[in-house]
Amino acid sequence: MGIRGFRFGAARAGFKKEGLDVGLAVADGSASAAGVFTQNRVRAAPVDVAFEHLSAGAARAVLVNSGNANACTGAEGLAATHASTRAVASALGIEPKAVLPASTGVIGAVLDAQKIQAVAAGLAGSLNADAEEQFARAILTTDRFPKVARAAVDGGAELLGIAKGAGMIHPDLAPGLPSRPDPGMPHATMLGFLFTDAVADPGVLQSALMIASDMTFNTVTVDGDTSTNDCVFVLASGASGVEASRRALTESMIQVCGDLAKAMVRDGEGAEHCVEIRVSGLLSSEDAREVARTIATSQLVKTALFGKDVNWGRILGAAGRAGVDFEPAKARIAIDGVDVVRDGVGLGADAERLANEKMAAEEYAIDVVLGDGPGEFTYTTSDLGHGYVDVNAGYRT
Amino acid sequence: MGIRGFRFGAARAGFKKEGLDVGLAVADGSASAAGVFTQNRVRAAPVDVAFEHLSAGAARAVLVNSGNANACTGAEGLAATHASTRAVASALGIEPKAVLPASTGVIGAVLDAQKIQAVAAGLAGSLNADAEEQFARAILTTDRFPKVARAAVDGGAELLGIAKGAGMIHPDLAPGLPSRPDPGMPHATMLGFLFTDAVADPGVLQSALMIASDMTFNTVTVDGDTSTNDCVFVLASGASGVEASRRALTESMIQVCGDLAKAMVRDGEGAEHCVEIRVSGLLSSEDAREVARTIATSQLVKTALFGKDVNWGRILGAAGRAGVDFEPAKARIAIDGVDVVRDGVGLGADAERLANEKMAAEEYAIDVVLGDGPGEFTYTTSDLGHGYVDVNAGYRT
Repeated sequence: MGIRGFRFGAARAGFKKEGLDVGLAVADGSASAAGVFTQNRVRAAPVDVAFEHLSAGAARAVLVNSGNANACTGAEGLAATHASTRAVASALGIEPKAVLPASTGVIGAVLDAQKIQAVAAGLAGSLNADAEEQFARAILTTDRFPKVARAAVDGGAELLGIAKGAGMIHPDLAPGLPSRPDPGMPHATMLGFLFTDAVADPGVLQSALMIASDMTFNTVTVDGDTSTNDCVFVLASGASGVEASRRALTESMIQVCGDLAKAMVRDGEGAEHCVEIRVSGLLSSEDAREVARTIATSQLVKTALFGKDVNWGRILGAAGRAGVDFEPAKARIAIDGVDVVRDGVGLGADAERLANEKMAAEEYAIDVVLGDGPGEFTYTTSDLGHGYVDVNAGYRT
Repeated sequence: MGIRGFRFGAARAGFKKEGLDVGLAVADGSASAAGVFTQNRVRAAPVDVAFEHLSAGAARAVLVNSGNANACTGAEGLAATHASTRAVASALGIEPKAVLPASTGVIGAVLDAQKIQAVAAGLAGSLNADAEEQFARAILTTDRFPKVARAAVDGGAELLGIAKGAGMIHPDLAPGLPSRPDPGMPHATMLGFLFTDAVADPGVLQSALMIASDMTFNTVTVDGDTSTNDCVFVLASGASGVEASRRALTESMIQVCGDLAKAMVRDGEGAEHCVEIRVSGLLSSEDAREVARTIATSQLVKTALFGKDVNWGRILGAAGRAGVDFEPAKARIAIDGVDVVRDGVGLGADAERLANEKMAAEEYAIDVVLGDGPGEFTYTTSDLGHGYVDVNAGYRT
């Protein structure tokens, strides 16, 4: 399928035990570009380099490796990222500054740039307009499946999105590098790459991406742990000749990023369920977001989801510790449409039995209504079970 | 052993599947009393009742049941708590207001007061100066062992502490009922009961208890979930005739509550390790507390503790998302004295191998030094493994 104005390639450099582990996406000409980055104080080398390169508002290529995050690697790691982007830029005959790097994998080991250098020419030679699937596979780590989504951009252009992410998933993406202390918004590694053939200037891309990531990636969680490497880039080739409005681009990005974000939770490490926590009735959407986030990251709630046990006391208990004011006696909780709590009190064993059956589904929603206010927010989360422990207790060995 | 001026009793009322499930502690005369309570917005009926009864600054008895938390039970739950305290007060020949109730167990089921009424006379008859161990057993839920600690109070008095808690452990205790929105301090069920034979007025008890709980119970976590039922009471019989200073009482309470808090983490549901997260080098102790709390509650850090894997990138990643400013390039991390990170960079495979061996211990400390500042704080946490999932995925069934 591809998307006009871009070509994709992939190679095996040897970072992972097996399979493709380097992806390359290249625009036919200079593309306007924007990005959002993890708000974690500890940033991997590629995040710093991509941020710096993006200051131009334009880019030609995206270079991604899996298997090594090149995070917490100091000056040596920074040099390795620069060496990698230089090697690929040289093979493509472009400026190193036009290459946006991204890495994901183990933290704390310096990226071996020689491995990238060794495959740079092959990568450049492998570029193909229809190879986005190979790119999507090459960037995976603990993911069970590649994540690709598309949407039309109103006016006749298209948007293609490719992402990876299954663990260390609790994105907190924003355009700048972190400066704001915000303990309420933790983070994870997810990488996202958006490609559009629309004509759009970097400012429009930036504002659309900021809104879309905050409404999608920043509302999902697998483990509550925000990564040192999260970033999402968008490149616009303009090859369609269609001048896209800010609104049209924002809408398409919300759709594509929403699909990708949900795919990450569905693919959550060891997860068996993907559950929407829909909180409403609070004074503001900020309040609702805080409550939804607290429920969605509660260990006790997540183990109950795994156990298919409608332990609504844990849900209400998590809501109560979110630091948000509400009247517990007004609380209503419904599991996939089945009320189990009304006026803050449980509706008994029959309702719970019915709700427990609903919790066998792979995907469902939990409504938590905490009053009559207009504030509402939805977080998407996964369950916490033996699969999660298996994946994470021995990830590096 | 006991403690002068108090007697203890226990009975089986039938809330749990087996064993003792009601504990009673009674002062020979009116005792000055104080308490701290969960800051969760959702409060169980006994918390509201105990808070109200404590407004007198005095109490005669503490009545605790396990197996049912009587939380999220509305007006019916409140009536049940009142009926229970009335029944026991009547058996003891004292005012209902002199009885401080506490409950722990399943959330959402109304306490069956008739079960307490049925054993009230027997409970009162069972009182014995040396029966604190039975009291300590009667208040347990998922705990594997009773928790009792003692300390001398400078000047010749004594302090006895009894607690329960293994899950829903992340206390956030304060003297008042919650009014402050504080998303940074989540909560859990732990119950703690302190008895001293010192002479002390309620104001002194309150201030000592507030400081001691904040330095001990409020610095441990098992699952990050603060309960709807947490509370700690202190009663002073004055039977020793020793007038204890505020300072002496505070010091003893810190010692006793510290021992009890650590016992709860050691007994953390399914836990195999009890780990101190010692954060230092930050600008303030508030900053250090926030970082320590974020590391101590990180799912990825806790599964790595279970896997005995020195995955220091997860530790640094969690620190980075705490919303606190620090220079990652200055970070030092040591596992039980073995440095694995210096100047923000890993020290390599040999150091990690040595550290991995240290992580086999049941108890150890992780030092996280993030600069040269004076701010330091220690949180104590447990690991997250299959045992935790087993306990929590099917708790109610």
